[in-house]
Amino acid sequence: MKILITGGGGFVGARLARQLLLKGQLTGQSIDELHIADLFPPPADLMADARVRVHTGPLLAQTELFASGFDGVFHLASAVSGECELDFDLGLRSNLDSTRLLLDGLRKAGNAPRLVFASSVAVFGPDVSNPLPDLVTDNTLPSPQTSYGTHKLMCEHLIADYTRKGFVDGRSARLMTVTVRPGKPNGAASSFFSGIIREPLAGVESICPVDLNVTHPVASPSNAVHGLITVFEASRQAMGGRLALNLPGLNVRVGDMLQALEDVAGPQVRQLVKFERDERIAGIVANWARGASSERALALGLRPDVSFTSIIEQYIQDCQQPSYPADALKGLKR
Amino acid sequence: MKILITGGGGFVGARLARQLLLKGQLTGQSIDELHIADLFPPPADLMADARVRVHTGPLLAQTELFASGFDGVFHLASAVSGECELDFDLGLRSNLDSTRLLLDGLRKAGNAPRLVFASSVAVFGPDVSNPLPDLVTDNTLPSPQTSYGTHKLMCEHLIADYTRKGFVDGRSARLMTVTVRPGKPNGAASSFFSGIIREPLAGVESICPVDLNVTHPVASPSNAVHGLITVFEASRQAMGGRLALNLPGLNVRVGDMLQALEDVAGPQVRQLVKFERDERIAGIVANWARGASSERALALGLRPDVSFTSIIEQYIQDCQQPSYPADALKGLKR
Repeated sequence: MKILITGGGGFVGARLARQLLLKGQLTGQSIDELHIADLFPPPADLMADARVRVHTGPLLAQTELFASGFDGVFHLASAVSGECELDFDLGLRSNLDSTRLLLDGLRKAGNAPRLVFASSVAVFGPDVSNPLPDLVTDNTLPSPQTSYGTHKLMCEHLIADYTRKGFVDGRSARLMTVTVRPGKPNGAASSFFSGIIREPLAGVESICPVDLNVTHPVASPSNAVHGLITVFEASRQAMGGRLALNLPGLNVRVGDMLQALEDVAGPQVRQLVKFERDERIAGIVANWARGASSERALALGLRPDVSFTSIIEQYIQDCQQPSYPADALKGLKR
Repeated sequence: MKILITGGGGFVGARLARQLLLKGQLTGQSIDELHIADLFPPPADLMADARVRVHTGPLLAQTELFASGFDGVFHLASAVSGECELDFDLGLRSNLDSTRLLLDGLRKAGNAPRLVFASSVAVFGPDVSNPLPDLVTDNTLPSPQTSYGTHKLMCEHLIADYTRKGFVDGRSARLMTVTVRPGKPNGAASSFFSGIIREPLAGVESICPVDLNVTHPVASPSNAVHGLITVFEASRQAMGGRLALNLPGLNVRVGDMLQALEDVAGPQVRQLVKFERDERIAGIVANWARGASSERALALGLRPDVSFTSIIEQYIQDCQQPSYPADALKGLKR
């Protein structure tokens, strides 16, 4: 099989690539070539695998690549929420135009490859006539409140139509907020969902901009990757005639995230989290799903992470890898 | 005010243009220029009005026009359902690319003009995990089953995002099936909703391809035009934070449509309708909304047509106009 991961240089994409290389096959067929298209080259371990082919640069420059005859595609590349809000045209180019170029390339190749699109829980948002329920379900009316969520929802429908026409065999999996992410805090409003765990574990103070009672659906990186692969391998019949589904989320309260941190790492680590309300971030988060249910994903055998403790333990285990900073667990080791 | 109607040469668009010229103002401001952009020139009566400016050709060639500083826009131009199914790329160009070019032109002008987008009840469709309810409401989850419906839904969300960013003041009004349309039967699966009334009134036999018990939400041309104008004039506040709404539909059974025809025109006219089931058309119609409710439109003071009899009477009155064929009511006059 010849597989493509767009955004395969990013955190979730590289993890997906590693998992696919380890697994060695998809739907029972061996993976011979794993193509990674991203703005930046993927981590060294991926570059070193003989099956990996790297395509660096904007997706909009990959017309020929997309039409080169893939058997399967994971489409993860995307400008993120904060970028899209700052640069409206960049968002449309990176998310909508790139997806269409990809779809038209796959269509041109003519073999109707299977395609998993990484959509997002950001398709949901409140509106005056239809406030968000406590749990967003597969049947909740999407009402995105960001350009990012808008693009994801538009692409879900575009992919459904290319699939209906037989040009691709597409499905859209809505990722929950993935945590704990490695690296530095970034400009994303959701950054603190990783920061309040990652920074204290490294012995660094972290600011929580919302109060303890905020709840949100989250997933560990490995759970998210497992979800993408499971949706890829699901039969059309198992998808049940509808092409977009919520991946499982663990619905967790910020206070319970911090209790889990204390349980795993002790009170001195937890005490590195300070509360300083940021009205801008709190306002954005107030428009996000407070929880999610995932009936259709459950029917495919997917499950949320069992606890936030297990999510923290996964991060601690990840930190053993050479690609993580040497002081990533400095707080834990004191 | 400088107003633009895209698709202003078509049946609903030209009727909207006439109504605006008659009304002379929108939201209390006089209409000084009414620009009509369409593939074909509008009817002669519109060409003759000194306020009308005509722009003939594809919307994709109207970059400068769109940025020329409109105060209000009615965006009706669209490739229809049948065209989009036959030519996938034409559909994307005509519906998605043209809408984006229009939005970017309006954004470039910088005055955030009010915009009404003519969306469609075709955004709704059944799927296995979420069958269509008896009445589709403003809160029904859209699941389009045609490229046309897909494009309409994508544009609704794109317009909502341009509005959220302050680039336009947009709203999307979902038109029900407009009947009775003049002219010849066309390739649209919905063509018979006009044909089974129009042809018998002209003394011509008409084939009904579905059975008497099929129900569907319909609106008269004047009701549809009134809906578009009312949505244009509604305040942002009255729109209630959500930008897409169902226009009112009269939920009517095919059998009751024919009874109304008999009531208005007599049994000999009704007998010109023959039933010959067409499995292709019946299959398409089975995926359509069987009825609609329109809570948000009702809150704006809009109402469905009072009866199908009144819809037929409106068509008979329309036939007095010089632009209608002389023998349009030949069946009635026998």
